[in-house]
Amino acid sequence: MRRLPEKQVRDRQALDAVLDAALVAHVAVVTDGQPYVVPLGCARDGDRLLVHGSTASRAFRRLAGGPPTCATVTLLDGVVVARSHFESSMHYRSAMLLGRFSALHGEDKRRGLAVLAAHLLPGLEDGRPPSAQELKATSVLAMPIEEWSLKVSDSPPEDAVEDLDRPVWAGVVPLRHVWGGPVDAPDLSPGLTAPEALRRWPEGRA
Amino acid sequence: MRRLPEKQVRDRQALDAVLDAALVAHVAVVTDGQPYVVPLGCARDGDRLLVHGSTASRAFRRLAGGPPTCATVTLLDGVVVARSHFESSMHYRSAMLLGRFSALHGEDKRRGLAVLAAHLLPGLEDGRPPSAQELKATSVLAMPIEEWSLKVSDSPPEDAVEDLDRPVWAGVVPLRHVWGGPVDAPDLSPGLTAPEALRRWPEGRA
Repeated sequence: MRRLPEKQVRDRQALDAVLDAALVAHVAVVTDGQPYVVPLGCARDGDRLLVHGSTASRAFRRLAGGPPTCATVTLLDGVVVARSHFESSMHYRSAMLLGRFSALHGEDKRRGLAVLAAHLLPGLEDGRPPSAQELKATSVLAMPIEEWSLKVSDSPPEDAVEDLDRPVWAGVVPLRHVWGGPVDAPDLSPGLTAPEALRRWPEGRA
Repeated sequence: MRRLPEKQVRDRQALDAVLDAALVAHVAVVTDGQPYVVPLGCARDGDRLLVHGSTASRAFRRLAGGPPTCATVTLLDGVVVARSHFESSMHYRSAMLLGRFSALHGEDKRRGLAVLAAHLLPGLEDGRPPSAQELKATSVLAMPIEEWSLKVSDSPPEDAVEDLDRPVWAGVVPLRHVWGGPVDAPDLSPGLTAPEALRRWPEGRA
């Protein structure tokens, strides 16, 4: 039997590191037996995962009702090229959270939005915070981080011994997620330049 | 009301371009009312989406049974920094396919695996093709591309007029997905070097 190159990781700190590197979670919404997988901007807030969206969205209204769901975060780190197609695979970190979302309200909701802004726009939180009307139009949901699994694949190719002599290259091609130079809004006021903080955005967020 | 910066795209060629840039789809598997969202290596084969995995995987066995499911592919292209948190968002291309998977067999399965290898390892398909035993251990599933939606967000920030004078930068920070230099397997035979084809891997695959 093949030894799977991926491994289950049970370390909560490793889970937090993956969630903290993710900008988007893929969340399941089931309606009348039909599942939908929706990408949502996310942020970890201690022991819960936050997502946000429009209150006008059907998916959000459904999620806020608290049905059992799953939020998966996947960071793709590279491609593993083995001497056989069978052993070729990917480097990735993938966290799966099971549970139910519930809607945040009042001060908790305002704080949740600030956590999302700090995570998605680190160092750029100078923008205007939401007005009462904008708060009303925004839904912030939280799922407790309780039932989860984390899989990490980060090993070199593990070819069968009889394949090692094949005259083909084997190794890993890393995939890097890199912030490009900021592009000014066309209606940017003269004299404003992109904040310094942007240069400190960590590579690898995706 | 806020004008949503994302737009529905109905052009099938645009859908194909997104699917062809994706290495991973997030697929829903529902078991006893509990949805799971599983990241799977994918490739488009004409009018169907292929995914592959181990026949030992419960998720794959369940998917092969053909329940209604959803496969979502998301390419994250950047962060939109507006003058308000409310208008800040992301640049992305996200395709959602609804339907049912079915398992490929025989020559169709072998061809499906070749399509997956050509997509995930372009120009590096010199590895050994699967043996009969490996074929047996691998599941290849296909979903027809029939019911789908494609959302693309690629506009500059769209701030409310009364926010335009705020003295904060606004614009887009692009997120690029870049292949790093190849890393040789530790047990690579001397004299072998990474194939030229690697240098032609397109940026933006993710």
